[in-house]
Amino acid sequence: METVNILIEALPYIKKFHKKKILIKYGGHAMIDDTTMSSTARDTVLLKYVGMKPIVVHGGGPEISRSMNKLGKEPKFIGGLRITDQETMEIIKMVLVGKINTDIVSKVCVHGGKGIGISGKDNLLLNARKRAPQVIVDGETGEETTIDLGLVGEIDSVNPEVIDMLTMNDYIPIISPIGVDDRGNTLNLNADTVAGDVASSVDAEKLIILTDVPGILEDPNDPETLIKKVQADEVMELIDQGIVKDGMIPKVMTCLQAVENGVSSAHIIDGRIQHSVLLEIFTKKGIGTMIKG
Amino acid sequence: METVNILIEALPYIKKFHKKKILIKYGGHAMIDDTTMSSTARDTVLLKYVGMKPIVVHGGGPEISRSMNKLGKEPKFIGGLRITDQETMEIIKMVLVGKINTDIVSKVCVHGGKGIGISGKDNLLLNARKRAPQVIVDGETGEETTIDLGLVGEIDSVNPEVIDMLTMNDYIPIISPIGVDDRGNTLNLNADTVAGDVASSVDAEKLIILTDVPGILEDPNDPETLIKKVQADEVMELIDQGIVKDGMIPKVMTCLQAVENGVSSAHIIDGRIQHSVLLEIFTKKGIGTMIKG
Amino acid sequence: METVNILIEALPYIKKFHKKKILIKYGGHAMIDDTTMSSTARDTVLLKYVGMKPIVVHGGGPEISRSMNKLGKEPKFIGGLRITDQETMEIIKMVLVGKINTDIVSKVCVHGGKGIGISGKDNLLLNARKRAPQVIVDGETGEETTIDLGLVGEIDSVNPEVIDMLTMNDYIPIISPIGVDDRGNTLNLNADTVAGDVASSVDAEKLIILTDVPGILEDPNDPETLIKKVQADEVMELIDQGIVKDGMIPKVMTCLQAVENGVSSAHIIDGRIQHSVLLEIFTKKGIGTMIKG
Amino acid sequence: METVNILIEALPYIKKFHKKKILIKYGGHAMIDDTTMSSTARDTVLLKYVGMKPIVVHGGGPEISRSMNKLGKEPKFIGGLRITDQETMEIIKMVLVGKINTDIVSKVCVHGGKGIGISGKDNLLLNARKRAPQVIVDGETGEETTIDLGLVGEIDSVNPEVIDMLTMNDYIPIISPIGVDDRGNTLNLNADTVAGDVASSVDAEKLIILTDVPGILEDPNDPETLIKKVQADEVMELIDQGIVKDGMIPKVMTCLQAVENGVSSAHIIDGRIQHSVLLEIFTKKGIGTMIKG
Amino acid sequence: METVNILIEALPYIKKFHKKKILIKYGGHAMIDDTTMSSTARDTVLLKYVGMKPIVVHGGGPEISRSMNKLGKEPKFIGGLRITDQETMEIIKMVLVGKINTDIVSKVCVHGGKGIGISGKDNLLLNARKRAPQVIVDGETGEETTIDLGLVGEIDSVNPEVIDMLTMNDYIPIISPIGVDDRGNTLNLNADTVAGDVASSVDAEKLIILTDVPGILEDPNDPETLIKKVQADEVMELIDQGIVKDGMIPKVMTCLQAVENGVSSAHIIDGRIQHSVLLEIFTKKGIGTMIKG
Amino acid sequence: METVNILIEALPYIKKFHKKKILIKYGGHAMIDDTTMSSTARDTVLLKYVGMKPIVVHGGGPEISRSMNKLGKEPKFIGGLRITDQETMEIIKMVLVGKINTDIVSKVCVHGGKGIGISGKDNLLLNARKRAPQVIVDGETGEETTIDLGLVGEIDSVNPEVIDMLTMNDYIPIISPIGVDDRGNTLNLNADTVAGDVASSVDAEKLIILTDVPGILEDPNDPETLIKKVQADEVMELIDQGIVKDGMIPKVMTCLQAVENGVSSAHIIDGRIQHSVLLEIFTKKGIGTMIKG
Repeated sequence: METVNILIEALPYIKKFHKKKILIKYGGHAMIDDTTMSSTARDTVLLKYVGMKPIVVHGGGPEISRSMNKLGKEPKFIGGLRITDQETMEIIKMVLVGKINTDIVSKVCVHGGKGIGISGKDNLLLNARKRAPQVIVDGETGEETTIDLGLVGEIDSVNPEVIDMLTMNDYIPIISPIGVDDRGNTLNLNADTVAGDVASSVDAEKLIILTDVPGILEDPNDPETLIKKVQADEVMELIDQGIVKDGMIPKVMTCLQAVENGVSSAHIIDGRIQHSVLLEIFTKKGIGTMIKG
Repeated sequence: METVNILIEALPYIKKFHKKKILIKYGGHAMIDDTTMSSTARDTVLLKYVGMKPIVVHGGGPEISRSMNKLGKEPKFIGGLRITDQETMEIIKMVLVGKINTDIVSKVCVHGGKGIGISGKDNLLLNARKRAPQVIVDGETGEETTIDLGLVGEIDSVNPEVIDMLTMNDYIPIISPIGVDDRGNTLNLNADTVAGDVASSVDAEKLIILTDVPGILEDPNDPETLIKKVQADEVMELIDQGIVKDGMIPKVMTCLQAVENGVSSAHIIDGRIQHSVLLEIFTKKGIGTMIKG
Repeated sequence: METVNILIEALPYIKKFHKKKILIKYGGHAMIDDTTMSSTARDTVLLKYVGMKPIVVHGGGPEISRSMNKLGKEPKFIGGLRITDQETMEIIKMVLVGKINTDIVSKVCVHGGKGIGISGKDNLLLNARKRAPQVIVDGETGEETTIDLGLVGEIDSVNPEVIDMLTMNDYIPIISPIGVDDRGNTLNLNADTVAGDVASSVDAEKLIILTDVPGILEDPNDPETLIKKVQADEVMELIDQGIVKDGMIPKVMTCLQAVENGVSSAHIIDGRIQHSVLLEIFTKKGIGTMIKG
Repeated sequence: METVNILIEALPYIKKFHKKKILIKYGGHAMIDDTTMSSTARDTVLLKYVGMKPIVVHGGGPEISRSMNKLGKEPKFIGGLRITDQETMEIIKMVLVGKINTDIVSKVCVHGGKGIGISGKDNLLLNARKRAPQVIVDGETGEETTIDLGLVGEIDSVNPEVIDMLTMNDYIPIISPIGVDDRGNTLNLNADTVAGDVASSVDAEKLIILTDVPGILEDPNDPETLIKKVQADEVMELIDQGIVKDGMIPKVMTCLQAVENGVSSAHIIDGRIQHSVLLEIFTKKGIGTMIKG
Repeated sequence: METVNILIEALPYIKKFHKKKILIKYGGHAMIDDTTMSSTARDTVLLKYVGMKPIVVHGGGPEISRSMNKLGKEPKFIGGLRITDQETMEIIKMVLVGKINTDIVSKVCVHGGKGIGISGKDNLLLNARKRAPQVIVDGETGEETTIDLGLVGEIDSVNPEVIDMLTMNDYIPIISPIGVDDRGNTLNLNADTVAGDVASSVDAEKLIILTDVPGILEDPNDPETLIKKVQADEVMELIDQGIVKDGMIPKVMTCLQAVENGVSSAHIIDGRIQHSVLLEIFTKKGIGTMIKG
Repeated sequence: METVNILIEALPYIKKFHKKKILIKYGGHAMIDDTTMSSTARDTVLLKYVGMKPIVVHGGGPEISRSMNKLGKEPKFIGGLRITDQETMEIIKMVLVGKINTDIVSKVCVHGGKGIGISGKDNLLLNARKRAPQVIVDGETGEETTIDLGLVGEIDSVNPEVIDMLTMNDYIPIISPIGVDDRGNTLNLNADTVAGDVASSVDAEKLIILTDVPGILEDPNDPETLIKKVQADEVMELIDQGIVKDGMIPKVMTCLQAVENGVSSAHIIDGRIQHSVLLEIFTKKGIGTMIKG
């Protein structure tokens, strides 16, 4: 009986998001083990079956670093961005496209979804350009050092044609966040940014970022201080106040930008919790932080 | 959390019946009050939203009799069939099409479904012909009396074109069980038979008959003796044994015929219980009796 | 030979209205007997076969009053509007949807048209809201009385989706003029207004109102004084002069509004005359009054 | 009023032939003057507007002979077939495609039809092969002479693709009866045969041959002896009896073959009578001879 | 090996003009013999097979004059325009539509293209109106004479519907340059103008005029002085300087107008050279003069 | 001029294979350097632009072995099949899907094709099952050893739905030869077999296997002994005679099977030669060995 009452409770949400695109970012830190990933994949398939159009963008930072270590290369970061030489780029591609993406596709298909893996290189989905070198200021001496990040890119434009074809034909696209420049070179992209840009370009209703924290916390050590809902125009203040800081800043900025570009709401939720996507979509109070325009 | 676990449990059924047509017969005796009807309508809409194609056929016997009484006409039955003169036929049409059908449409629309009411007269959906007069044998004298039932019909053919158009365009058709003969005369039809014939003609996956008993009971006074599943080839035996008898016989025969004509399974369930349709579809053990080929 | 000459004469009209929507209002007072209705239905089917897209809205006032009388309820009107309590509303629905609509559908189908009956409740076709209570001023004392008309509504919006689907698929929609409010309650609507609003919302070429007078007469007692054509901007003057008065006012206002909303011409004609629709469409001089923008 | 009664009388025929293809052969002898041709074109357009799909094949023998004479070439025939040298073939093409076809197209367009002229060369519509030389037996001496007819062909196959595209898009195709062989050479074809073969290949409902006699007459000098209807299996007998003879034989054989290949009925009528096509289609007794399977 | 290198060299052009419409004008003076025409037809088919949408407009002046002579009529011109009486118009139609057009269609079909011939009369493709009489000033006396050119027309509007249907269905339309006025009269049109107007109305990428000179020459007697490329805004200057003169003026003006109406580039090339169309499209330096906006 | 002559020579092949699917297997041994791969990718794009539907399956054996060595794992083979433990499978996936596939996609996109990479896991394209263990017989002792190859699979079925969608929408699918079993496990597949099975399942016209030998040679050391054409029924004889042996056997058997399953012809050609695909398709004598049914 309960089964049924709950289906009935979910009905308003099912109706509200009927035929709407839901962009889910599977974070590298959220994909902690096979069970969690499998569960997330099953939730994604469920969204498809109850009438939504889920699209997945995945990350993979920790796995990339593990593979680099295995091959005797030390991962290095400047301002959160991975320094990417040609060899690192090869490893990134192999891990993201060859390993993580195919794993997610498998899990989606096992649960009955028509999963299909694509990367930013397919039909030039993610057109990018090399980022300018970073300028680092030495806190003590004030000396500036310019560091070339290598094959790190930023998105110029998203070509949503392939995604539109796939969702229209009932496929669930799983997207690896690598870009391609005008000459066919592969570039390393930030997965959150990719998720946000794709969400905007396909007119997604929701952008849901699965990560390894409960959302925006007033006190990072106290999950009870979770902020459930933030208006777009309050975001900058939260950053100024230092409540949003460090690695959370780019995630929140991605959400803000997506919302400003027409996505109805963006969500930062804890992907390590089973069924967090469904809890965020199908319950009134949700589970993480929602940013709304 | 429970919400979500249950959605996940429902997923296999949602997948199994994806894009399948489900014919639900709302029985006159099952539509006991406004709340039950509203709840059944909501369940029907939910089936639509999770990807099935529900089609409704409704009855209305008790309501028709009430209206006849109000107008000073006494309802009369021969062998379960209502003797139908021209005036009675008018009342039947008004009650079925004008009252019950529009009420169901309203409830379906209020819950977000694209409900649309049709009758067997629309585009000659239910082509029928007048039934032959009934021959009644007096138990004592053995005397035979021939009684003309009036405008009581039996279905010649179903023209599913209009239903196909409606389901393809995401509508939920609500069908009143009246037929039309070759000259445009309206005929009174048995709603169960209509449900079965329509189910076959549109290649429905399931036929679900909502009535006012729990299903087929070995002992009609003991709900514990419910028979959960009957093979098509066991049906005649149950009738021979007297376990299926009286008003249950035509319902079971309708189920049997539907299954023989390609419907995967037919169900007789208690429509007075809230969400009985969902319980039958989304739980492993179901709630009534299933007849399978 | 004549047959053929006349077909040839009709060709310019057939070309002119090819694939155009023609909204025909069957008035309650025009449906005087079975033969007239059958003939009007056949004319409607002919329009379909020679390439137009007829849509029917019907009334039914006299029939409703007859049914109320039969059930011992006295019809009451304030300013031409029927006071509609819950029980009256039930009778209206049953008569309009269950009786008159199904009768027209039958007649259209018998003549080879794909007739299908819908009401304003189907897929929320006619969204309406309860009318404000009427204020009646006593002519002598000047005393004001406020009378609640009950379930009498006015149209908020027309949702033409279902009509578009039907006409595109070669059906002839027959529409009962009842509305539905936001909570699913049925409301009694003026059939002329419904005809006008539907005509505008589906971009009809013509609105033809069948009634029981020859059109607008300068002298109501002299059919020879029929005004054949009225410009939209002359309508108010005709009302001011008292030439258009009483029950004709709402009809004329409906025509005026339709024309102002894009319908090319609106016609008031005598539905009691056989083939009046065809005479109005296929002959140069027509038969009633045409209002043009 | 008459106008309208006649439309109503035509309705059963309009319904019966709704969306059916009607192949009309405009015979060279039937196109006696501009007025007749214009009238026939208008009738053809009318068929289109009341829902049929007319297709025209035209002849042009007399006009071709006139043009040959003007250019100082004497027309010669063997067994009804025009001896066709290269220069004659050029004249035939110019007269049929350049003159008669464009004239018919103009007349169809002027009356509001979407006329479009094609010939058997367009997209290899009429694939043909050179006819074997004719053997002529001298009645007196019994001597055999073999005469090469030149560029006279017989149809190998009809490629209806272009006609299907045109009728589906509401065009009225006007077809010139010239064929093309495997190497692109133009061949002179019998227009009646072309009409029959095209009718079969597009699944026409009717083949109507307009000529300069009233139909099959028992006594060729007495129009009162017109045979209204011939069963397919009676045709050979009529030929054996000499009732069908000379130039009528190929016409009747074309009709017979069309009917045997699935055309419902074939008609030979007098194209010089105004509106003969309409009289044949829209009146019960018709005007010429109908051959039916 | 060479074969393949050259295909590879052609690839950029194949890509650039993929699915683009290319309007090719076959000039009467360029159709010097059967071999040249056949070769041009084959080139046209090749364009279709490598993904473009070729459309042909043909001329036929010399052939028309030959036919007139044969019939004892002397061709007369005023300012390059043929004086066209009714009889001349008949000859023009027969030569263009019946002879030249069908010949091109044949050649296109023989090489595997789906050629189909149409004229400006089909579905009123080229709506035209009679030109005003020409006023001729006597150089010596200054006397003005007004000469009516007869059935010479100028284009009012192009109705590209039929061309769109044909190219969408992979046909290659071959268009005869005759027009039709509002009453169905045929008018003689300038073929270059027709080519330009059709090119604009179907949004062609290129207009290629095949003629009997190499292009625009600075010195008409020296092919080495060919001007390869002209900007639209330089055209008038070339005329002022007398470099473009006589019969070249209308061709160049047609090109200019096409380019101003959205055609990307217009080309005047020597159609007597084998494969000139391909040389112009598939080689960097081209073969004639290109006019670009 | 040559450019154009060669295009004209290619026309018959372009016509013959218009809209036909061409399956090209890029062999691991054929992808010897970046220039060769880029050139092959460009040729593939050219096929698309001239109207064919190319589909690519790639191998990658040498690259996989290189990556294994880099990670300190020694590649081992039994009967030509790579022993594949879990870790090796991960490397295979990363190299095939993450490296080689994305590289080909890039090259195809750079040359203007709509390249999209998929693997056998996407929408369960290549359903496979673990191969039975291999039984090795010791040549000397006759002792049998059973060796489990690990995650090596054989294809059960191909689900061409995704390929059909892609080719219909003008994409060029690039397929990595890994399979998926019923539980979502990845299996290592033979790329030639995949190419053959996919070719059959999508009704390809041609299967072209690019490898590092010129084709079937009578004397493997003498390229002059190339066999240009083999009938399907001659294949087994060539194997019996030892002319086809070792690694060539599976390639030839794949070709044979494809031809038996409806592929018109299969080709084994030297992928190291620039433009070998084009030479095989666009020249009469071809460049490698063709196997035909």
